[in-house]
Formats: sequence, structure tokens, C-alpha cells
Amino acid sequence: MDTQQAIKQPMTVNGLDIQMAFDTIDGIKADPSLAKFQFRARNAWVTGGTNRSMIRDFYGAGREDDSRKTAFEFTNGEPPVLLGDNEGANPVEFLLHALAGCVTTTLVLHAASRGITIRELSTELEGDLDVRGLLGLDEAVSPGYDGIRIRMKIEADCSDEALEDLMAVAQAHSPVCNTVCRPVPVRIERVAA
Amino acid sequence: MDTQQAIKQPMTVNGLDIQMAFDTIDGIKADPSLAKFQFRARNAWVTGGTNRSMIRDFYGAGREDDSRKTAFEFTNGEPPVLLGDNEGANPVEFLLHALAGCVTTTLVLHAASRGITIRELSTELEGDLDVRGLLGLDEAVSPGYDGIRIRMKIEADCSDEALEDLMAVAQAHSPVCNTVCRPVPVRIERVAA
Repeated sequence: MDTQQAIKQPMTVNGLDIQMAFDTIDGIKADPSLAKFQFRARNAWVTGGTNRSMIRDFYGAGREDDSRKTAFEFTNGEPPVLLGDNEGANPVEFLLHALAGCVTTTLVLHAASRGITIRELSTELEGDLDVRGLLGLDEAVSPGYDGIRIRMKIEADCSDEALEDLMAVAQAHSPVCNTVCRPVPVRIERVAA
Repeated sequence: MDTQQAIKQPMTVNGLDIQMAFDTIDGIKADPSLAKFQFRARNAWVTGGTNRSMIRDFYGAGREDDSRKTAFEFTNGEPPVLLGDNEGANPVEFLLHALAGCVTTTLVLHAASRGITIRELSTELEGDLDVRGLLGLDEAVSPGYDGIRIRMKIEADCSDEALEDLMAVAQAHSPVCNTVCRPVPVRIERVAA
């Protein structure tokens, strides 16, 4: 084996640069303040149930990130039955996309740190909600999801027990899953227009 | 005034067909089962921190919706500092987009039902999180957001008191805000690949 080449080429597991991951972990262990991130979104109402977000900057690893040359842009809309014209997916659907992606990335990351190669990973999510909560027709009905089910198809080069453990680790450590499962305070304040 | 025309043209407030909104509310009051919705997403891992969701079908108002001819598609990615290449916004950023949109639409809807015209509405969101939770470096650190702040600019044809009330109504009745503020159960189950 060519040692020179081994040093130069990043070792990737599941598409992740595993050396960079361990370097990040070592850096955070030495200075926990590097673990503090702040994510942001700017949204503007268009009309009816249509509005648009711009997402670009964030703070993390001790500095303002400047890696994105342009902002990501996403449009919320509503289907006709909810008074829209399918201008975009609706906010509760975007929440499912966020949850699916976060559980997936968290699982893939923890698998990589254990040296487990994932061959295939896909999920189907379902969330039930009763729009009487949104409409304020019954204050006993919660406006949000009653619960969300994630059906996961996963194939990896490890035992079923190791996979079950990875799924539990992903659920316990996924930032979006944790934000959904745990009560997280949201504060709305008015600023001058 | 031409009565015929008044009957034919939908009365819109804030871009919402207010008659259709009240008809929906009357329908749900007569048959609460019409308020039950189920939203869905299908996600597939690509590599590393990249994965993609397809969102199309849902159940609501007593039937499977068929209004969308094609699926919405969204890509989660990660910035370089989180081992990605900005393939898309990341899941915790998509969560902020969902939250911004839901609070906005809920406010606009309740304003319309009160006959309040919104002239301008935009929000800036910030959420703090500590990636030691994601990485499992300290089990005392929650992986999710510590809290989320929404700064809202809003102009409408009503008093400041009515606006403050609308903001409180939006926070209390927004499905995504409620899903974040309240503990919502997430169940992950493995299905055959």
C-alpha cells in the first residue's frame, strides 16, 4: 500500500470524510464552544397561504459561515382543499421533510463513526393532524401533529441488532426529531416594519 | 352594484377565498371527521448528509387528495463545516422554513376570518443548538433547538392590540409551532427493504 496516497486521500464511510468527523469531535472536546450553532431563516408572506423563505447564513464552529454564495429559497403553499393552489408543499409537509432528512443524516453519521457501511436507507413518514386545532374550532384539539410514524428501509453491513441500535441512536440524537419530541420554546416578538 | 357579479366573484381577504373558508368551517362543524388530515413524505438517502424527499399525496377532508400532478422534491444537504458541500439547506434549517411559513399562514387565515387586511408580513427566525447533542458527546445536551425566536414585521388595518392578539392566536394555533412547542411522539419502525 502506498502510504503517501493513503495520507492524501480522505477516508470516507457512507460518503462522509471520517477523519474530518473525528477531527471535529476532537476540536469540540477541546473547546465545547465550537459546538454552538445558530441557524436562521428569513420569510416573507406573498398572498393567502403562500410565503417564501431565504436561507443562507448561520453561525457555527466559532464563526459566521460564508460558504454559501447564494441563498436557498423555498416556497410554502397550500392545496386547494386548504384554500391554496399548490404553490409549494405546505409547512407541515416541510416539517416531515426536515424530520426524514435529520433522522437519516444522524443515522448515517453514527454508522460512519462505528465503521458501519450503509448500503440503502429510505423512509416513509406519516403524520396525523386535525385541522380543528388550526381553525380554533375546539380548544381541546391540538393544532399540531398527534404523532409521526417513520417506516425505515435500511440495509447495512452489520447485524440486525447493530441496526436496531443505530435506529435508536438516530432517534435519540437527531436534532429535528428531538425538537419534535421535546417541548421547545418558540418566542414571537414584533419588530418595527 | 351588480349583484350577479358580486355573487360570482369570490370575496377574498388576504388572498384567501373567505366564503370557501367559512364553508369549510361549517362543513367541519357538521362533520368533525372532515378535519382529519394525514400528511406524508418519502425520503431516500443519497450519500453522506444528502437525501431527498418526494411529497405529493395526502389524506384530508374525507378523501385522498389528487390535486397534485407531480411531486414536490426537496434536497437536504450540509455545509462544509458539517461535512457536506451545501447540496441543499440542512434539516434544522428546513424546520425553520416550516415554522416561519406555518405561523405566517395561520396568522393570515385568522386575520381574514376577522376581516383584517394584512398589508405586509415578514419574519426572521433564529434557532440555537449545540451539536454535542447530535454527536452524542454529552448526554446532558439536548440534540435539538434550545429555543427559536421569531422576529415579525407586520402591518395591517387594525389596532396594535388587535395585531398583538393575532400574533398570539397564530402562535397558539399554528400546527408546526404547536408541534415544536409540545412533545409530539415520533415512532421509527423498520420495514423490509
